Amino acid sequence: MKTQKFQIPEWAYEFHGHKCPFMPIGYRMGTIALQKLGVERCKDHELHVLSEMGVGHPQGCMQDGIMSATSATFGKGMMEKLHYGKVAATFWYPGKGGVRVFLKNEFQDKLAPHEFFKYRKKGIEPSEIPAEVSDDIIDIVLNATDDELFTVTMLPGFVYTPVKGSFAKAKCEVCGEYVFERYLRVKEGKKVCIACSGQEPAEHVFYHPISENK
Amino acid sequence: MKTQKFQIPEWAYEFHGHKCPFMPIGYRMGTIALQKLGVERCKDHELHVLSEMGVGHPQGCMQDGIMSATSATFGKGMMEKLHYGKVAATFWYPGKGGVRVFLKNEFQDKLAPHEFFKYRKKGIEPSEIPAEVSDDIIDIVLNATDDELFTVTMLPGFVYTPVKGSFAKAKCEVCGEYVFERYLRVKEGKKVCIACSGQEPAEHVFYHPISENK
Repeated sequence: MKTQKFQIPEWAYEFHGHKCPFMPIGYRMGTIALQKLGVERCKDHELHVLSEMGVGHPQGCMQDGIMSATSATFGKGMMEKLHYGKVAATFWYPGKGGVRVFLKNEFQDKLAPHEFFKYRKKGIEPSEIPAEVSDDIIDIVLNATDDELFTVTMLPGFVYTPVKGSFAKAKCEVCGEYVFERYLRVKEGKKVCIACSGQEPAEHVFYHPISENK
Repeated sequence: MKTQKFQIPEWAYEFHGHKCPFMPIGYRMGTIALQKLGVERCKDHELHVLSEMGVGHPQGCMQDGIMSATSATFGKGMMEKLHYGKVAATFWYPGKGGVRVFLKNEFQDKLAPHEFFKYRKKGIEPSEIPAEVSDDIIDIVLNATDDELFTVTMLPGFVYTPVKGSFAKAKCEVCGEYVFERYLRVKEGKKVCIACSGQEPAEHVFYHPISENK
C-alpha cells in the first residue's frame, strides 16, 4: 500500500539551506518517532534524540530533518550524537520509553545509484545540483512508505538520564566573561574559564543509553 | 543610536518550539557574524560555528538561533560545542577568517531580573510562560543595538581544519546494518559496528580552534 506523498514545510528546507534527500528522510524519522511514542512536536525539553551519526561522513543532514519535525533541537540540548556512523536514532520521551528508527539498507541501496550522488561524489555541493535532480530524489523519499524506509524498534525499557542543569554562573576572574559554574576551573586560587585556565578544553560528554531491550 | 526592531522569521520560533530570549539572541549573533565575515546564509558546507556552550546549563537555545540565521547547522556538521559554558561562538569561513561573538555580561545582567527567568527558575517551561512575559523579554532583545548586545572580535588568523569526509561504508558482519567506515571495528576477524563490537562507544571528537589572535 502506497502512502500519499509526505509533506514537509518549506521552512525546513530554508533552515537546512539546500535540497537533499537526507533532511527529508530525517523529517520522516522524527515524524514516525512522534507517532510511535504517541506524542506531539516538543515545545520545550521533553523528547531526547540520540542520533547514531558521527563525523567525517555524509547523511548527517537527516539530523536537521529530525529537529525540524520534532523540535527536539541541538540548541535546547535535546539531540546528542552517539558516533556510531549509522543512519539511525533513538528517541526517548520520559514516561513513554524509547523507539529506535533505522533507515533500511535496502532503501539506502535504492537511493545510491541516483544521479544526485554522482554529483556529490564529484564534490558538487547540494545547492549546485540541478533542481530536477534534487527534486526527483526527494520525491523518492516522500513517496516511499514508512515500511520501505525504516526498521522501527520499540524500546519500552529504554532508560536515559539527562545531565542535571543549573543556572549558577560567575565571572572568570581573568577575562571577566560570565561562565556557567560547571565550566569554571581554578588557577592560582582564582576561578577562571577554561580558556584562561590553560587546561585542555576537551570535556568528554557522552551519555550511555541503557535499554533492557538491547 | 537605536536600531530598528530586529526581525526574525516566524519559522525560527516554530523550529525552536517555544518563545524565549536566547533563540533570538543567537539569531542576532549569527546575523552579525555573517555581516562581519561579509557572507550570506550558507546553503551548503561553508561556515563553521564553534559554540562555546556546554551541557547542564541554560541559554543553549542561542545555538538554534545561530543555526536558523546562518544555516550552519548541526545536521550538516557545521556546528560543534566547545564546552566552555559561555554565551559565545566563533564563526569561521574558509578564506574569510573568523569572528568571535560574545553576549556582553552587561546585557546578561540587564535580562536577569526579568519575570521570564522567575518562571524558569521555578521550573516552568518556556511554552507555559504567559505570552506577554515572553514577548516582552524578546522585544528587549530585538530592540537592543548590536553594541548593547555583543562584543565582536575579528580573528583574521583563525585556523580550523574540519574532519575529512568519506562516503565509504559497509555492512556490520554481525547485525547487518550499514555503517560508515570510520566507525567499523574488528572483532574475531569480522568488521562490526561499535554496538556489536562491545567496545566503548565513546569516540572523543574535539576540534581545537587555533588562532593567531588568541
